[in-house]
Amino acid sequence: MPNDLSLFFNPRSVAIIGASSNPNKLSFGIFRNLTQYGYEGQVYPINPNAGEILGLPCYPRIEDVPGSVDLAVLAVSARLTPDIIRACGEKGVKAIVVISGGFREVGEEGAELEQRCLELVKSYGMRMIGPNCVGTMDLYSGLNTTFIHGIPDRGHIGFLSQSGAICGGIVDYVRGKRVGFSCFASLGNEADVTETDLIEYLVEDPNTHVIAAYVEAIRDGRRFIDVAREVCKVKPVVILKAGKNSAGARAVSSHTGSIAGSMAAYHAAFKQSGVIEVESVSELFDVAVALDYQPLPAGKRVVLLTNSGGPAALASDSIAEYGHQLANLNEETQQRLRGLLNPSAQVTNPVDMLGGAEPTDYGEALKIILQDQNVDVVVPILVPQALIKPEMVARELHHAWKGSPIPMMCCFMGDQSVKEARNFLHEHGIPIYTFPESIGKVLGAMSRYHSWKVRPLSRSQEPPLITQKQEVRSILDAHSGESALGERVAREILQAYGCPIVEGGFASSPEQAGTLAASLGGKVVLKIVSPDLFHKSEVGGIQLGIEGKSETETAYRDLVSRIQQNHPKTRIEGVLVEKMAPGGVEVVIGIRRDPNFGPLLMFGLGGIYVELFKDVAFRIAPFCDEEALEMIYETKAGQLLEGFRGQPRGDLEAVVACMQKLSQIALDFEEISEIEINPLVVYPEGQGVLVLDCRVVLGDDR
Amino acid sequence: MPNDLSLFFNPRSVAIIGASSNPNKLSFGIFRNLTQYGYEGQVYPINPNAGEILGLPCYPRIEDVPGSVDLAVLAVSARLTPDIIRACGEKGVKAIVVISGGFREVGEEGAELEQRCLELVKSYGMRMIGPNCVGTMDLYSGLNTTFIHGIPDRGHIGFLSQSGAICGGIVDYVRGKRVGFSCFASLGNEADVTETDLIEYLVEDPNTHVIAAYVEAIRDGRRFIDVAREVCKVKPVVILKAGKNSAGARAVSSHTGSIAGSMAAYHAAFKQSGVIEVESVSELFDVAVALDYQPLPAGKRVVLLTNSGGPAALASDSIAEYGHQLANLNEETQQRLRGLLNPSAQVTNPVDMLGGAEPTDYGEALKIILQDQNVDVVVPILVPQALIKPEMVARELHHAWKGSPIPMMCCFMGDQSVKEARNFLHEHGIPIYTFPESIGKVLGAMSRYHSWKVRPLSRSQEPPLITQKQEVRSILDAHSGESALGERVAREILQAYGCPIVEGGFASSPEQAGTLAASLGGKVVLKIVSPDLFHKSEVGGIQLGIEGKSETETAYRDLVSRIQQNHPKTRIEGVLVEKMAPGGVEVVIGIRRDPNFGPLLMFGLGGIYVELFKDVAFRIAPFCDEEALEMIYETKAGQLLEGFRGQPRGDLEAVVACMQKLSQIALDFEEISEIEINPLVVYPEGQGVLVLDCRVVLGDDR
Repeated sequence: MPNDLSLFFNPRSVAIIGASSNPNKLSFGIFRNLTQYGYEGQVYPINPNAGEILGLPCYPRIEDVPGSVDLAVLAVSARLTPDIIRACGEKGVKAIVVISGGFREVGEEGAELEQRCLELVKSYGMRMIGPNCVGTMDLYSGLNTTFIHGIPDRGHIGFLSQSGAICGGIVDYVRGKRVGFSCFASLGNEADVTETDLIEYLVEDPNTHVIAAYVEAIRDGRRFIDVAREVCKVKPVVILKAGKNSAGARAVSSHTGSIAGSMAAYHAAFKQSGVIEVESVSELFDVAVALDYQPLPAGKRVVLLTNSGGPAALASDSIAEYGHQLANLNEETQQRLRGLLNPSAQVTNPVDMLGGAEPTDYGEALKIILQDQNVDVVVPILVPQALIKPEMVARELHHAWKGSPIPMMCCFMGDQSVKEARNFLHEHGIPIYTFPESIGKVLGAMSRYHSWKVRPLSRSQEPPLITQKQEVRSILDAHSGESALGERVAREILQAYGCPIVEGGFASSPEQAGTLAASLGGKVVLKIVSPDLFHKSEVGGIQLGIEGKSETETAYRDLVSRIQQNHPKTRIEGVLVEKMAPGGVEVVIGIRRDPNFGPLLMFGLGGIYVELFKDVAFRIAPFCDEEALEMIYETKAGQLLEGFRGQPRGDLEAVVACMQKLSQIALDFEEISEIEINPLVVYPEGQGVLVLDCRVVLGDDR
Repeated sequence: MPNDLSLFFNPRSVAIIGASSNPNKLSFGIFRNLTQYGYEGQVYPINPNAGEILGLPCYPRIEDVPGSVDLAVLAVSARLTPDIIRACGEKGVKAIVVISGGFREVGEEGAELEQRCLELVKSYGMRMIGPNCVGTMDLYSGLNTTFIHGIPDRGHIGFLSQSGAICGGIVDYVRGKRVGFSCFASLGNEADVTETDLIEYLVEDPNTHVIAAYVEAIRDGRRFIDVAREVCKVKPVVILKAGKNSAGARAVSSHTGSIAGSMAAYHAAFKQSGVIEVESVSELFDVAVALDYQPLPAGKRVVLLTNSGGPAALASDSIAEYGHQLANLNEETQQRLRGLLNPSAQVTNPVDMLGGAEPTDYGEALKIILQDQNVDVVVPILVPQALIKPEMVARELHHAWKGSPIPMMCCFMGDQSVKEARNFLHEHGIPIYTFPESIGKVLGAMSRYHSWKVRPLSRSQEPPLITQKQEVRSILDAHSGESALGERVAREILQAYGCPIVEGGFASSPEQAGTLAASLGGKVVLKIVSPDLFHKSEVGGIQLGIEGKSETETAYRDLVSRIQQNHPKTRIEGVLVEKMAPGGVEVVIGIRRDPNFGPLLMFGLGGIYVELFKDVAFRIAPFCDEEALEMIYETKAGQLLEGFRGQPRGDLEAVVACMQKLSQIALDFEEISEIEINPLVVYPEGQGVLVLDCRVVLGDDR
């Protein structure tokens, strides 16, 4: 099905089913909105009990409408909705918005109703937004199927939301501030049209330059990543994700799980697809406006041009916090500023023109600054005082800046007296913020997007064909009833895919163990093998530094009898005998299958520090080698491996290769829900890595 | 001198020296402000060239004023200021505000001028605010000596600022929002009256309930802590500190220094004195309003009462981020809500009344919720839609809430349509925020303040009289020319104060070393002693695991010849022979003398991880044992020492004792600028700690 959702925004005709003539009903509000903002298509109110609404003739049923209907907006009770959808299908309606609630969000019965609606919609080849949403708004066609009070100005931010209220709140917040939007879409339960569909649609919408979204859950995570990766190369996508802490409540069964909440999957997905993630509604708004209005800065050198030191100090803190710095103005620039400004003014950056600065000072100083080659961004800051007209400052700034390729954003501190200035700047494509603290966040988001945009879109590497897939298949089949596979079996699985495992093997008697130890040579470690013991070291099931046949035999007997004594009901299969590995940097690599995004890979510092420092990074598989390296560098473990404080650089290539193999196993075998290698010992460059312990969890044990 | 600064806010008479009759001059603005907002005292414009200003007769000089003058506001050039101050002194003026700039902030000449002004002020027993400030404003007396445009409403937030512009910006931002202030003071260069003086004054001011401040530098840090500790027991002090990143630029000479920027001293000072530190202007404002309007929550159980799910999800994220949780409403509450609300409404927390909720629903639901014993805070959330009047919701909420001891704060998402509601709520002492993300920050600040307020104000423990002070005095005198003292001397200093040091001693020949090793018994470590080598391990100057006389003699020769070969010009004094200590948790304790706050103690995880994880906490000495423990618990090292993952609990008491001894050394000897113990090995409870390496830096080496 082609993803043409344009009928939700620019239909030739709209029917409002359940339109009320009672001004206290929300459905009256919808109808009034639809007829109030310049929409030029046909509008049909449908209501068996009303003659006319706002002067338009009412039809009892959709089938009574004389002309064709592109879009139907349903505001009837949930229980009536399926029949109406069928009637719409028969009438030849192409797109449906279901405003009504009472579906999946209220429980099982509602979920069934929703499913019925979806099936009907599909059977007629229609598309549906909702149910349980507030509809759509298009600032170009004038379509408004919501009951939101008021509309924002026309512009280029396309906003989609899994909460209708957030749409309403934003509309209310921006009204009168001259910030423009292209369209709004509230998606509700997303029975059919999802956030990903909308993003895919908006990338083609010429009126939309920036896509902003409020998201609670992305059900098809893989498709989201695939779509968003492509879209973000063309237009910025800014997302606020709610529900950060709900994941923490979920019960989890293992170390990896205790750190990787599913929020980790969202953060990873956003990073991997170039989505700009923000932390709050105000940031969503601030960042979207800046991306819409201004070009991306070419670098991180910022000039502050101010009439006061305090706000400039706060802005400096803010830009530094987000990785930017104050530009060094060249000598000529300083000279020219010195000639222009009050002799007490500061002509190094921040350029402080002092409290008496006039609007023309702002304009003239800005012209000089924009000519300096060391400048990537300009931030004029104004604190209003009794004698200055902020609007005049705004005009001078715009006049001096227009035509410049250097991005500019203003901070005018205040509210009452900067209203006209704010509207003027917004109308002229210049972002303006109330407090200096916003500047850093916005620049940080812009530069994150810039780095993502200039980097080549390397697809996930196609892994080599794995001839050992069959081998793992049979191992898994042999253990299909089990939920957790200990090191003995997990070793075999990893080995089949070529992960370097510490040398060793299984022994079920003291003699076997002794022979194995002798053949391995040098010191060995013995580890108890039992289906009942998951954390071997915590029950004393590991014995280190054994050497030779007879020492091993004795150690075997000691180990087994100790376990039998302390844990009498434990079934003991034998021991793993493994060579003692030389020391190196210990890291952990784990995979957990996220219900929405699939295999989520974790990398971090190993040993006791995994849990103490939670020094971990995440990516969703598949990922390319560059992404794997980025993940490593996000952690302190990455700094250690890079050769921190004179230590040798670790074999990062081998770590990445191991991560890729783990990902591939998880992608190849859906029944694997978790894999953990802890520790993976990393040796100096060229000397590889070694898996010292590992385990696999099958099925969904959450 | 008694700290009575009341004449800066409520003088009987004011002279404006340099008042201009030219409406384009700032000093005209000041004069207009002074006569415009109901100030009832005598006002005297002073200007030799003007006959009258705004209808008031102008006097050529201060001495020409017929009556007495409490407060003089100077707006003349810097160069004329000293003479005018003298004239004010002769006239009997008690308080002076110097608005003019051109003093310390413009360089050395200005600094001298400022010093001259200060001396004159002192010689006449006057007090001075400024220079380089925008003056003071009092919403009760009507005094306004600033050129800020407009004034805020009368209320109970006292605001002081080291930036006049921040005052101006805040006034502009709050105007028309019905948020009340008691007074504003812009302190400029703080030649005489400082932020600490003002805080000390405002604690006595009955009109001020909350003290809010913007601060760039606190020069007398020790006095600030002493004053703020007392004030914060009575009234909350909220501070925004600017200049966070400038400290990072400072060159530092050692590991401790590389982590402890002086911002660390500010953070520590604020923590130790109960000051609520905030991160932005908007947070300063939001937190001050909440503290002024509402009682402190007794616990952390929050109820969200909303007409929409999205904003409630964001609010949940926000409160969880700042350590709060959603209250569990009891069965009866849920039952009653179910009876009241739309059958589809959610009656568990967040209580979601859905989009059609009426103002009365808010009021009635709130009444029910306030009766639930499980509720510490209530947060009503409203997203305006076409049919609701936010002001009516505000009225219902206020009506239902008034008289309740449970704090309430609202989030009404929007701007245009919530103006009346905001003003109504502010007028009735209920904070209201635009976006849900503000809620968590505000509650976090309130609960931090609550914990500080209920905790007993334990003064720093008086340390035992140190009889060894004389011993350290003579060690330091013997090394007075040196800038850095290595382990050999540092051991002696720490030992004198009773720090437990690993057993060992100095040897200047192989034979001496051998004898020493033999007498110590067991394995020893040799460490090179040289005034030229600071980082012994990085030059291979440490040899571990030596045992017995002859092995030690050989090791001595090897060590010395290796160093001589690799570093030919190095002076070698000998070696330290120390017993090999058993393993334990390695931590680092360091002291760095902060220029404003004195000795700043650092505690953190030791070894390579100090620099990698920067897992450190800071406090300013002196501190009590509870504060030392708090500092330990702020770090991951603290979690390790508490017995992380089955490890034995470390001897925290011994760690604290060692921290106290280090502090005492730093307090006793001003010439010590740094001390570092790295590692301090911590053994299980009751088994103490051991200093394995240490060093001392003298003088100011920054």
